[in-house]
Amino acid sequence: MNASLSDYPGEALRAIATELFAELRRSSFDGIGVTREPFGPAETAAQELVAHVAAREGLAVERDRVRNLVVTLPGEDAGKPFMATGSHLDSVPRGGNYDGAAGVVAGLLALIGLRRLGLRPPRTVTLLALRGEESAWFGKSWIGSHALFGLLTEADLARPRFDNDRPLGAYLTDVGADVRAIARGERLLDPRAVRAFLEVHIEQGPVLEARNLPLGVVTGIYGNLRHMAVSCRGAAAHAGATPRELRRDAVVAVADYVMRLDRQWARWLDSGKRLVITHGILGTDPGEHAVSRVPGAVRFSVEIRADNLETLTGFHELAQNEAQTLARERGVTFVFDEPIVHRPAPMDAGWMDQLERLCRKTGVGCMRLPSGAGHDAAVFAQVGIPTAMLFIRNPHGSHNPDEDMGMDDFLAATRVLTEALLFPG
Amino acid sequence: MNASLSDYPGEALRAIATELFAELRRSSFDGIGVTREPFGPAETAAQELVAHVAAREGLAVERDRVRNLVVTLPGEDAGKPFMATGSHLDSVPRGGNYDGAAGVVAGLLALIGLRRLGLRPPRTVTLLALRGEESAWFGKSWIGSHALFGLLTEADLARPRFDNDRPLGAYLTDVGADVRAIARGERLLDPRAVRAFLEVHIEQGPVLEARNLPLGVVTGIYGNLRHMAVSCRGAAAHAGATPRELRRDAVVAVADYVMRLDRQWARWLDSGKRLVITHGILGTDPGEHAVSRVPGAVRFSVEIRADNLETLTGFHELAQNEAQTLARERGVTFVFDEPIVHRPAPMDAGWMDQLERLCRKTGVGCMRLPSGAGHDAAVFAQVGIPTAMLFIRNPHGSHNPDEDMGMDDFLAATRVLTEALLFPG
Repeated sequence: MNASLSDYPGEALRAIATELFAELRRSSFDGIGVTREPFGPAETAAQELVAHVAAREGLAVERDRVRNLVVTLPGEDAGKPFMATGSHLDSVPRGGNYDGAAGVVAGLLALIGLRRLGLRPPRTVTLLALRGEESAWFGKSWIGSHALFGLLTEADLARPRFDNDRPLGAYLTDVGADVRAIARGERLLDPRAVRAFLEVHIEQGPVLEARNLPLGVVTGIYGNLRHMAVSCRGAAAHAGATPRELRRDAVVAVADYVMRLDRQWARWLDSGKRLVITHGILGTDPGEHAVSRVPGAVRFSVEIRADNLETLTGFHELAQNEAQTLARERGVTFVFDEPIVHRPAPMDAGWMDQLERLCRKTGVGCMRLPSGAGHDAAVFAQVGIPTAMLFIRNPHGSHNPDEDMGMDDFLAATRVLTEALLFPG
Repeated sequence: MNASLSDYPGEALRAIATELFAELRRSSFDGIGVTREPFGPAETAAQELVAHVAAREGLAVERDRVRNLVVTLPGEDAGKPFMATGSHLDSVPRGGNYDGAAGVVAGLLALIGLRRLGLRPPRTVTLLALRGEESAWFGKSWIGSHALFGLLTEADLARPRFDNDRPLGAYLTDVGADVRAIARGERLLDPRAVRAFLEVHIEQGPVLEARNLPLGVVTGIYGNLRHMAVSCRGAAAHAGATPRELRRDAVVAVADYVMRLDRQWARWLDSGKRLVITHGILGTDPGEHAVSRVPGAVRFSVEIRADNLETLTGFHELAQNEAQTLARERGVTFVFDEPIVHRPAPMDAGWMDQLERLCRKTGVGCMRLPSGAGHDAAVFAQVGIPTAMLFIRNPHGSHNPDEDMGMDDFLAATRVLTEALLFPG
């Protein structure tokens, strides 16, 4: 089987990738970075670009009931569980061109390569371009994968988009998703029908770049726990006329809170725990704040990520206790909204070995590393599908317009993925 | 002369005050507090209410070239410098009904009282309802008084309103002010024409309430130094994939900054200095922030108030040095906009004595206290006009909808003001 890849059309695939990435960037450039809002026009346009190239190459193109894009290359035995690959096409606001799209394009190139070579893989191979992976918009991550496995709740469908308060359900309706089935928690894809899910993704941190290695095999995906909006209320008062000891200043209280959590985080890291803490959104109330007013209210987000559930819930408890301590000390109140929790997801040991073996065989350097970032792969792992991920080195971090990826690294990942999809097991 | 006040129409004035405050609140209620934006419809409506009552009572009503409201009761000797009283009619967003308006209504009642008694004061008495006292809108305080004495700059006229970026100059044009003369720094009122300026105002802090005294004689007005928008820039990055030691987190940097300044403030207070520090506005960038993104940018305001210039500029220097230290330690940058500075203003010793004497004579309890809040009176003092202020007790602080004032306290202040305006010196 592998022998047949000796005619692997590397240069043709490079040209298609270059064209596709350029077109994706052009269609979603926002003046600073790229913005492909989930279940919105820019994500749909990106889907259509990929679908257009797939159809041109003679691949079967359809949409599932979540309106994820599904591209299929039939295998020798259509009755067997299929091999799945893919990633997402949406982005954070003002994000980069490769977070998500790299995995979709890699999967597409793998299918195109096999089809051009006239190879019929042992199992059917399916590319999934999943919708709504980024939590930046609705607070919920991996919406397309969650919906596929019946894991979205009514509460999730009611989640407002951060910038306009329109609920997720309305966006799903816009694109023609089967919102009733999704709301009922119906399984739109049976996990037993999937032999394995392999996701290629750019690394979103600096590890591979620092180690000078093109690829990484992911050992597990951090879980996360998010409060989208914690509210701290003190008392607004005249800045000039309210002495320090009588103030209930929400900005000072929240600054104190951020610093206490930061010091606790450092302690937990020192003790060998693996976690990250982020307050990505924080601000006084534009409806009432003023330069000369002691700020009476601050809203902020809290995100905890950890490689195991105990660390995740342990730090969450600490974060709430610190808030209660501060509330007593500073005469303010903290109100936490319902947390959104995604459990940590270990990757499949057999497929990790397999990807590492294929990297060695292809002659491309790789290492094993955990993923602090969340991915659709976590959902596939959690429903019991053997799942693995391949990271591509990225020198400038992610969720920013400077995010980058070398084409050679990308094509090496595509090659490894292609071989893995032919695995007859 | 004072003997003539034996027929002082206290009950009639109480009825007029009750009606006027109710009407002012009704015309500017925003659903939560009152909002009377300077040089906007709600401030103009408040002016017209006051003008209507003044005209009904037979007082002369006009507008000066800043479109401040001017109400006049002619004195025995029209050639002598006149006695001025007054305050402002604008409010902060969602503020209270009395901050400013109490002083305007007190002045109006004083003029009405004298006129109803048929008294001709030794000097002409003028009520000024000054426009645009609150800094919340354009960053600049005491706009009406500054303009009157030629103290507004072209840069001030270009200042954008915080909520819509429209410049102050456009608002001045809207109301028909003489923007050209103001821009030239022309003195529209000669300080030598004013014998004294006496301003009644609610206390905006808790001191009189705590001491159970209805009135306060102000010893001096704190100066202030404001940065409307300090920008802290770090590096936006993926929250899950960027480890603690590689982050340049703008939220953590600014939280650190706020806590350092707060600790320094406590030290300065302990050493006997009198100052207040406030960060009333603070927030991540809504255009790029996200729950799962290490925040790359925070903007915040810094306000320093102090009773003397040395403390004001000393703490300002410290605030900038702390920012530079933090910038080095945390790999971020701090960019400070041009500060807006208002110098501290001492009150006139003779008028302080006089007001205290009149409080004793009227049988109303009072004490001396400094004003941490700024007032139009500071501008009058700075151009060399003998200036004094009388504070009215207020149980709920200021710049909030709960701000309050007892009618008996208010009428006592009005009575003391009336007597002071008759002072023949």
